[in-house]
Amino acid sequence: MNKPLILITNDDGHDAPGIEVLTRLMMQLGDVVVVAPDGARSAQSNALTVTHPIRFKKAEQREGLLRYICTGTPTDCVKLALNEIVDHKPDLIVAGINHGSNSAINVLYSGTMGAVLEGCENGILSIGFSINNHSLEADFSIFEKFVLQIATEALKNGLPHGTCLNVNAPVGEIAGIRVARQCDGRWTKEYAKRTDPRGGSYFWLTGYFENHEPEAEDTDEWAVDHGYISVVPTKIDLTAYQALDIVRNWNL
Amino acid sequence: MNKPLILITNDDGHDAPGIEVLTRLMMQLGDVVVVAPDGARSAQSNALTVTHPIRFKKAEQREGLLRYICTGTPTDCVKLALNEIVDHKPDLIVAGINHGSNSAINVLYSGTMGAVLEGCENGILSIGFSINNHSLEADFSIFEKFVLQIATEALKNGLPHGTCLNVNAPVGEIAGIRVARQCDGRWTKEYAKRTDPRGGSYFWLTGYFENHEPEAEDTDEWAVDHGYISVVPTKIDLTAYQALDIVRNWNL
Repeated sequence: MNKPLILITNDDGHDAPGIEVLTRLMMQLGDVVVVAPDGARSAQSNALTVTHPIRFKKAEQREGLLRYICTGTPTDCVKLALNEIVDHKPDLIVAGINHGSNSAINVLYSGTMGAVLEGCENGILSIGFSINNHSLEADFSIFEKFVLQIATEALKNGLPHGTCLNVNAPVGEIAGIRVARQCDGRWTKEYAKRTDPRGGSYFWLTGYFENHEPEAEDTDEWAVDHGYISVVPTKIDLTAYQALDIVRNWNL
Repeated sequence: MNKPLILITNDDGHDAPGIEVLTRLMMQLGDVVVVAPDGARSAQSNALTVTHPIRFKKAEQREGLLRYICTGTPTDCVKLALNEIVDHKPDLIVAGINHGSNSAINVLYSGTMGAVLEGCENGILSIGFSINNHSLEADFSIFEKFVLQIATEALKNGLPHGTCLNVNAPVGEIAGIRVARQCDGRWTKEYAKRTDPRGGSYFWLTGYFENHEPEAEDTDEWAVDHGYISVVPTKIDLTAYQALDIVRNWNL
């Protein structure tokens, strides 16, 4: 049997430690192509570059590994890889390992998960891996065997149409894996206001995540907060099916 | 009763014709605050500005209307408005009218819908309005009464928790309104490759949308293709609930 073709990207940029770890791990499972942004693209969601063109170039190669660096967003990287770089459809797309959690509503902001949703949209098995530690010094070592296990099981079992995985690891010891749902919650106090030397105000995005269901044990936030890896099956169809009939009863 | 407070943003920039129309219409329904990007932010999805600070400034005011221009993305505009600009929670957030359709998978790429999802995440009734015409000369006149009708019904009825609306209009005559689901499909042949005068390759995002279920009459694509306005109840919880048990049966 041919080895699976695995496409890797991230949103922390091609030289982030997390993608180095993920690449090393995926090379145990298949032939690997990396197409990653040329710098940090955190919180780029599914953003696309439309007002200017994008470019990519080959980076230094290693045995069994093709690496490309792209000027676009993570979603651009996946689109460009599928349209212009790989010669056949990858069996798996993985993104990460992200420096920082993408649990709860962060799935919508995350460039990592943007790339994963894009892979899923193209009918390809896709998984985002993140760790709840923004530091570039984050220790991925305990997470590694779980990354391999989840990717192996995904390759073996596949996922339903339009479904991908959002995987988030806690820091430190790992108590196990929990298949979870996206936690309800929101960010608050989101800006730090500063004043520049000329008296103008500027705002840095910051904030605190407010968990709206801290007691619920089936959420991704609960899992990561309690030392578990959360695995959230995530879909690209955003239709609120249970609301269709409600809105059909409006006077429209 | 107090007039509802309505926050307006878009992704085509504060001076796009679509937001002018939407502002004029919403002023018939309530007190209006506009917080819009200082230029085009198409396809910015839920992207956030995190690597540099953002700013906003007051634009020229009109009676019953406060206008602000922001250096960030549409999602930044909503966050900044809610955290730093409005003095109480808006009753309604509307985005658009977008120059270009945001039906099907475009909901994930759209900066307009990014702003709407952000409003929804903050527990506020939120609606995105788009028209299937990318031109800045797009004629919104036939769409106007439907925009008012949908916003009025939304204010009257509200929406379930975590649910917002993605509204897309066809060009020309409108046959009516259809409450629809997000169509399955994907973009193909997504890049135009060019060569610069120095011999380097660069890529423009372009492409063709491939509808994977053209016969299905309950999708947003079908509606817009057949002269109807599509109204898709859209959710911010991306959990694929029907896949939870499937993944729980993996060897994890």
